[in-house]
Amino acid sequence: MKYTLTWQARAIRPDGESAWFPAQVPGNVQRDYGAYMGWGDISVGENVTLFRQTEGYTWEYRAALDCAAGNGENAVLVFEGVDYRFDVLLDGMTVCEHEGMFSRVEVPLCGDEREVVVRIHPHPIREDAPFEDRQQADQCVKPPVCYEWDWHPRMLVSGIWQEAYVEMRHEDYIRRCEAFYTLSEDFSRAEIRFETDCSAPVSITLFDPDGNVIAAGDSRTVFKVENPRLWWCHGQGEPALYTYVARTAHHETRGQIGLRRVRLIMNEGGWVEPIGFPKGRSVAPIQLELNGRRVFAKGSNWVNPDIYNGVIDAARYEALITLAKDANMNIFRCWGGSGVNKKAFYDLCDRMGIMVWVEFPLSCNNYVGTEHYLAVLEQEAAAILHDLRSHACVVMYCGGNELFNNWSLMTDQSLALRLLNKLCYDLDRDRPFIMTSPIFGMGHGGYTFYDPDAKKDVFTLFQSSHCTAYTEFGVPGVTNIEDIRRIIPDDELFPIRDMGSWRLHHAFGAWGAARWLCMDVLEMYAQEPLDTLKKVIDLSNWLQCEGYKAIFEEARRQAPYCSMAINWCYCEPWITAAGNSLITYPIKPKPAYYAVKASLRPVLASARIPKFDWHAGECFHAELWLLNDSPEAAKARIMASILLDGVEYPLLAWESGEAAANTNRIGPTVNWILPDVDAAEFTLRLEAGAYSSEYRLCYRRSEARRETRQMNV
Amino acid sequence: MKYTLTWQARAIRPDGESAWFPAQVPGNVQRDYGAYMGWGDISVGENVTLFRQTEGYTWEYRAALDCAAGNGENAVLVFEGVDYRFDVLLDGMTVCEHEGMFSRVEVPLCGDEREVVVRIHPHPIREDAPFEDRQQADQCVKPPVCYEWDWHPRMLVSGIWQEAYVEMRHEDYIRRCEAFYTLSEDFSRAEIRFETDCSAPVSITLFDPDGNVIAAGDSRTVFKVENPRLWWCHGQGEPALYTYVARTAHHETRGQIGLRRVRLIMNEGGWVEPIGFPKGRSVAPIQLELNGRRVFAKGSNWVNPDIYNGVIDAARYEALITLAKDANMNIFRCWGGSGVNKKAFYDLCDRMGIMVWVEFPLSCNNYVGTEHYLAVLEQEAAAILHDLRSHACVVMYCGGNELFNNWSLMTDQSLALRLLNKLCYDLDRDRPFIMTSPIFGMGHGGYTFYDPDAKKDVFTLFQSSHCTAYTEFGVPGVTNIEDIRRIIPDDELFPIRDMGSWRLHHAFGAWGAARWLCMDVLEMYAQEPLDTLKKVIDLSNWLQCEGYKAIFEEARRQAPYCSMAINWCYCEPWITAAGNSLITYPIKPKPAYYAVKASLRPVLASARIPKFDWHAGECFHAELWLLNDSPEAAKARIMASILLDGVEYPLLAWESGEAAANTNRIGPTVNWILPDVDAAEFTLRLEAGAYSSEYRLCYRRSEARRETRQMNV
Repeated sequence: MKYTLTWQARAIRPDGESAWFPAQVPGNVQRDYGAYMGWGDISVGENVTLFRQTEGYTWEYRAALDCAAGNGENAVLVFEGVDYRFDVLLDGMTVCEHEGMFSRVEVPLCGDEREVVVRIHPHPIREDAPFEDRQQADQCVKPPVCYEWDWHPRMLVSGIWQEAYVEMRHEDYIRRCEAFYTLSEDFSRAEIRFETDCSAPVSITLFDPDGNVIAAGDSRTVFKVENPRLWWCHGQGEPALYTYVARTAHHETRGQIGLRRVRLIMNEGGWVEPIGFPKGRSVAPIQLELNGRRVFAKGSNWVNPDIYNGVIDAARYEALITLAKDANMNIFRCWGGSGVNKKAFYDLCDRMGIMVWVEFPLSCNNYVGTEHYLAVLEQEAAAILHDLRSHACVVMYCGGNELFNNWSLMTDQSLALRLLNKLCYDLDRDRPFIMTSPIFGMGHGGYTFYDPDAKKDVFTLFQSSHCTAYTEFGVPGVTNIEDIRRIIPDDELFPIRDMGSWRLHHAFGAWGAARWLCMDVLEMYAQEPLDTLKKVIDLSNWLQCEGYKAIFEEARRQAPYCSMAINWCYCEPWITAAGNSLITYPIKPKPAYYAVKASLRPVLASARIPKFDWHAGECFHAELWLLNDSPEAAKARIMASILLDGVEYPLLAWESGEAAANTNRIGPTVNWILPDVDAAEFTLRLEAGAYSSEYRLCYRRSEARRETRQMNV
Repeated sequence: MKYTLTWQARAIRPDGESAWFPAQVPGNVQRDYGAYMGWGDISVGENVTLFRQTEGYTWEYRAALDCAAGNGENAVLVFEGVDYRFDVLLDGMTVCEHEGMFSRVEVPLCGDEREVVVRIHPHPIREDAPFEDRQQADQCVKPPVCYEWDWHPRMLVSGIWQEAYVEMRHEDYIRRCEAFYTLSEDFSRAEIRFETDCSAPVSITLFDPDGNVIAAGDSRTVFKVENPRLWWCHGQGEPALYTYVARTAHHETRGQIGLRRVRLIMNEGGWVEPIGFPKGRSVAPIQLELNGRRVFAKGSNWVNPDIYNGVIDAARYEALITLAKDANMNIFRCWGGSGVNKKAFYDLCDRMGIMVWVEFPLSCNNYVGTEHYLAVLEQEAAAILHDLRSHACVVMYCGGNELFNNWSLMTDQSLALRLLNKLCYDLDRDRPFIMTSPIFGMGHGGYTFYDPDAKKDVFTLFQSSHCTAYTEFGVPGVTNIEDIRRIIPDDELFPIRDMGSWRLHHAFGAWGAARWLCMDVLEMYAQEPLDTLKKVIDLSNWLQCEGYKAIFEEARRQAPYCSMAINWCYCEPWITAAGNSLITYPIKPKPAYYAVKASLRPVLASARIPKFDWHAGECFHAELWLLNDSPEAAKARIMASILLDGVEYPLLAWESGEAAANTNRIGPTVNWILPDVDAAEFTLRLEAGAYSSEYRLCYRRSEARRETRQMNV
């Protein structure tokens, strides 16, 4: 039996303590404090900067305890996660000091305690870090994103971010019941065993995915399942979940089991090494194999969907994950900079068949392996592994984000990463582990529609790339006009300038001067003055839509050597003015979301178009493909045509023939000289019923026609 | 007190048991059996093939026990290593079954036993391996080299290969005394602690490298050393060794401690990543840093110096290691295919300042992580780590040889390699670990003077390479005429043909049809018919000398990005007819040994010569360098000249200016039109006193002159 508590909090500021104010648990104390101070919505204007002044504060939570244990019961105060360094006091006496937000803390109660106080210390700030940035976090196991990122404002949150309650436990309380299974090589048999931690015998009942009892037994029983229903990711089959109930006289606990085998195997073609000497190594394998089948992983980088990590609940997760599933995604890379989610996230992904790449909370820093850091990391990583290893959805672990790049300076020798490899081996040996992303063969970036160094748009850039997996790539879009009006004060709204709210909301100076608004790129493609906010937003979203389509489909065309396409990023933690996400905070899909959804259909007609913008008189060409990453064979009759200035020009009909399951098929290339008409865009249309696709491309009329038009205007 | 035993052995053959024959311990039972059978020297002719018939045999060793323990003593039968799967029987009763040659086995004795028998089972042969080759060994932790390699005949050795004895132990026997130390960041202080395993208190006395007592204490003492004398590798300083004696009333043990800090850090320039997206990872660090100093690792691949691993003794090790030190080497890569050496090897390397790269016994196979294999590997690797971690000379561990290449098919996901990473982390955390060689950035090969695919000689090939480390490269040479006459029967000697003893001794068909004699390459450079054995040998050794010089010096010129030059290979396990080694079995340096010795001098004048063979009328050019990997600054006046057809043509004098410690200096390029004279070679001479160098190059006279000469002849 669990009893929730009623919490208040206060700030211990340099000038003294604040009054006690109501505190939401789970939640973040900064949010409660902001409400108490009347600081308003942090997404609006520059409100979020008000929280800078709280960075050195110590915080206290308090709650009255009034929970005398019944006969034979023990009362335990449980904190499922407190962010980040804290003490627990019972009636003024410190009973626990702890560092780490992912490990659970339990405090036994005598029953006569009257008050619990949780004192949260200021955030770890590495003293000699040069800036107010993520480097300050490189000796703590806390998501560095809150220290500021190019899409996340600085906002050092903390607090009782997970459930906290008093639990009454009898002697026969089941402290742990965990299922482990083996699958035969041909998947025709499964054997499930349970490990329990309980002072009494635990009876266990196993149910099939339809809820029918299969067998009953206990922790010594080997539950044999013939022809088990396997757990498949979305698009490849049903995410079948067996369930169990474990019981003692006074306690019951439940769990779900997805039976599947997952491996990282060598990408097809990955063993083909350059001829000649000196000879290096082959690329690192990054092809997911699920139940013996190579699966193309298509999805998005999951980042914290709220600055306030404590207030995210199952309903929010469910809405966001449902959108991903609707968009034909089958994987989230849960980016390390944002930490690890609450349990509900993984439960939902188990149920919806979304594979999860779990990253430990390291990102873009050199986490030097001091004794203190390694000790906290070991405790926290072990806690994460114990929490996650029962989830079918978790298909791999990763040490952290971009750690082997020159902005991080970690290497294969870094003790933190060697420790994580060891812990994963010790606690969850059969789940793949990689030290970071990217590893050899993989690619991150680009992040804009046009790369000024390479002088290539994303169409061209990705067609000249050859990666085993694209696990970050992005095209920015400006946020919808309603939300822009909400977050940017009227007097800053237009013309857009690099200052104030636009800058704070990442339109400028986020990563280089021009991102994420990228006015320089917009102006490259604009064929009339960008003299209204609507024009800016429309053009930006056009580029985001077509850019994402180009990359996702190109990655799919590069299968099977390429095995993953995971864009940067899925959601956002507050309303940005512009950015790479597919969904505006909190749950509003951008136009690009729908474009990606179309590009990720299991079967679709697709065109490899060499570039985005075309000139009158130029020969347009595009290679036709039938993409198929469904587990069934597919075929189509694809009619290619071009729609220009209101006229449809038929080009070609291609009978694809049969594309085998999880296999693409290449078709002919269409060629067509673009006539000189008065238009600014044209559309390549591939008509193929449910598999149809359209590409809306940039068209530049001739100079002569442009001048004529200007005269007419 | 240790008592050695007198051993006999016998073969249990399909047709019954052989008689008992004398057996050498440590040794190999096949060697004893060969002597008993009168099979002769295995280096001669095709004698070694006689041993094929013994492959399925079981072997038994026996020895009489006659060692009643004294008062308060316990008798223990100790096997420091038995190769590979064996049982121990006392008076007919099996008391131990064991798999693994690197872990020690101890059998307590009552004192009344009369006989010990060690029964050695046939070699592990994976049943479904396709050939009689190393794949048969991919589920055992045995050096795969004995299953056959391209320089090693198939010869499945086994036996009691390490010391075996009865030891009398009092209760206060010191089972373990191990030193651990920390060094302050600036190396000004060391703290040494001892861990002991003994039922009585152990007193410990610490001595400085000159043998003076520093302090006495016990296992609770922290021995502080101010301004410790650090252990340096050869060429960088003194390999200072502190020593200690640990004592109880009845037992005493000694050890040596080299105080140093070793790391693998990023190669200079290694963080410079290609511009543009998608972006991969930086190369893996392979720069050895010793006591805060980047050290260029120069040396050779150590392979088993005898087919009979059991008979190698400290004297053999010492002779070979002394030669390496004399050749200015500072590192051995102990190649995983040959397994791990006996303790004397590491003691000697500690004393002589030779760094050792230790490889676990995995090579060129896919060691699939079955439960059985992982269990044996864990036991054996842990034994190796416990044995080696006290050695200053051991600077890094490596999972095995060329495992990430398409002839091995292991990856970063292979459980065996993840296990080795874990064990190294658990047991010896501060010593670097890499999963295999090569890893990203490094290079293996080439192995011939001329690469027919690349159409480049090694001069050209390595100048167009850009690796962080060259950890295998080779140029073959034919063995000296005396040894050739010894191993090749007279009737096969000349002309050299691809058959019989030449083939068995790796002149043909070792790796492709032509290696290692490489007659095709010799004929490319021969300017007169190769009509005597001496001409073949002379030309081959000329190429080996100049080829090795070219590569070693090029690798040094590529420092600091390049951090290692380690040739394939140092020694050989029997007399090959031709091969890449620098030393002919057992301890006879080839001409190439002396060439390499010259190229590895700490300071030398060096020339980057674009290719080996030159034509009359061509413009010869060479870039001048002063190479310096000594810890002191150096400078030189280098006089470059060419010696052609008996005439010396002075080219240039270059005042190098000062090359800082461990830093090279580039000079001018000399250019010179080669006159047309009657010669087949010329020499570039860099006269610089002790730093002088010479390069003997191929010269081709004009066709006109060639014809003139032929008429004169």
